[in-house]
Amino acid sequence: MPTDSLMSREAVIAFLDEVFPQIHHGGPGPVIEAVGPLSATLRLPYHKRHLRPGGTISGPAMMALADLALYAAILANIGPVALAVTTNLSFNFMRKPAPRDLIGEARLMKLGRQLAVGEVLIRSEGETALVCHATGTYAIPPRKS
Amino acid sequence: MPTDSLMSREAVIAFLDEVFPQIHHGGPGPVIEAVGPLSATLRLPYHKRHLRPGGTISGPAMMALADLALYAAILANIGPVALAVTTNLSFNFMRKPAPRDLIGEARLMKLGRQLAVGEVLIRSEGETALVCHATGTYAIPPRKS
Amino acid sequence: MPTDSLMSREAVIAFLDEVFPQIHHGGPGPVIEAVGPLSATLRLPYHKRHLRPGGTISGPAMMALADLALYAAILANIGPVALAVTTNLSFNFMRKPAPRDLIGEARLMKLGRQLAVGEVLIRSEGETALVCHATGTYAIPPRKS
Amino acid sequence: MPTDSLMSREAVIAFLDEVFPQIHHGGPGPVIEAVGPLSATLRLPYHKRHLRPGGTISGPAMMALADLALYAAILANIGPVALAVTTNLSFNFMRKPAPRDLIGEARLMKLGRQLAVGEVLIRSEGETALVCHATGTYAIPPRKS
Repeated sequence: MPTDSLMSREAVIAFLDEVFPQIHHGGPGPVIEAVGPLSATLRLPYHKRHLRPGGTISGPAMMALADLALYAAILANIGPVALAVTTNLSFNFMRKPAPRDLIGEARLMKLGRQLAVGEVLIRSEGETALVCHATGTYAIPPRKS
Repeated sequence: MPTDSLMSREAVIAFLDEVFPQIHHGGPGPVIEAVGPLSATLRLPYHKRHLRPGGTISGPAMMALADLALYAAILANIGPVALAVTTNLSFNFMRKPAPRDLIGEARLMKLGRQLAVGEVLIRSEGETALVCHATGTYAIPPRKS
Repeated sequence: MPTDSLMSREAVIAFLDEVFPQIHHGGPGPVIEAVGPLSATLRLPYHKRHLRPGGTISGPAMMALADLALYAAILANIGPVALAVTTNLSFNFMRKPAPRDLIGEARLMKLGRQLAVGEVLIRSEGETALVCHATGTYAIPPRKS
Repeated sequence: MPTDSLMSREAVIAFLDEVFPQIHHGGPGPVIEAVGPLSATLRLPYHKRHLRPGGTISGPAMMALADLALYAAILANIGPVALAVTTNLSFNFMRKPAPRDLIGEARLMKLGRQLAVGEVLIRSEGETALVCHATGTYAIPPRKS
């Protein structure tokens, strides 16, 4: 496993803005706050398009945040050439998140040559209780060596 | 288990438009094509905001479709008062969907008093191969009886 | 995708008995009742070691049945050389199974070169209601061609 | 949430031995090494019945360990009367575990009145790398208050 992230936060942001402009469609999308060895932290700024009945943040908004957080963690640790493809995502929704920013912390549990596996802890900003826990698996295409 | 859906397609659409207008933010959202006993079929019209790197439909777009399809199937079969809450969603992404409409077919495997469990099969319109399979669990709040 | 199973039921049974004798440790294990194109059907004979508190069949007994059913379906369709490795399994337990035989029907939704994805429907013998639904992903090692 | 475990390790072991003797069928089953606030640690002693083709510990052995670890963590924290029922389990298998003891650390992320959600980290004894990550959801029957 790598012991440091290959790409800087700025490089990951620039790469995502170029290849993935859709994440900001209809309003500001998730913001990459930090990347590190096998990890990434993202913020989903509160926006009314993320609400669901009852006035809490919707499941799909959390799922998009989790997927992007794992994607950013992988990208930061294998470099911008590789295009990881999500093969599996699993979510447990534990509490209804208040209408505020969400913070998603992604941690890769495995970063192999062909497969990456990670988890994401999602909390409302400033809270310790988890609102959602996600795990994901990504197929990594062959890398130039 | 019920042997018929309680709400008509039109009633489900009207209810969702009222309580869940966010699904159409930024462009047309999923369309409910049919509801039935323990089932619902939805269409996600193609829109460029659903694309991901590589020009295929994104995972989050499919996840939002699956969640709403199960939600609609539950709603149609328990009526508009109850507010089901997603507790678990799990996705296997099998093929990259071409930039076209997606069809999601939700089927409830269990509709108990407290818990509903269902699966969603997602395909590109006109194709037989699955692009995504989802399973979901929903907590059903106490119903007036 | 293949349109027929490569191995017969008898060949799959013989192969599993040779490489996987542990499944019958402590009492009779799952029985392969049929294999077909992208599918396999297994029976778990009732045995008291599969019970859990309350006198129903335990989750781990169902999980072992599901894993073996998918493994048998893959084996039957790619041949005895390949050793598929489980990478992900996800289970929804819907009803408590009575102390009777269980039937698990595995169906592969994708059988690619590197990845197989399938689902398993588990029912008590003679019943139509599902007691458990499982999905699984398997990494397929490089095959000789 | 409780800030301490209600039952001692000895009390959990005695309760499980009484209601769940099957876990030791065919050889020694998982051992409860510790219980604490929202947590439990279990050991699966190495036994040849847990092997799978290739000489590594099988998926079903790890799944049984994870399920029991979450069950023990819930039991220790809500007391011996309640009978929690597994509703969902999801596993990511990351590395093939060597033929040695496995350690499973369960941590409850939510312990609500009706639903408990937790994760289990499984490692070979003495190793830091995860061999399996599990998440599980349990329905908790109404408790006397």
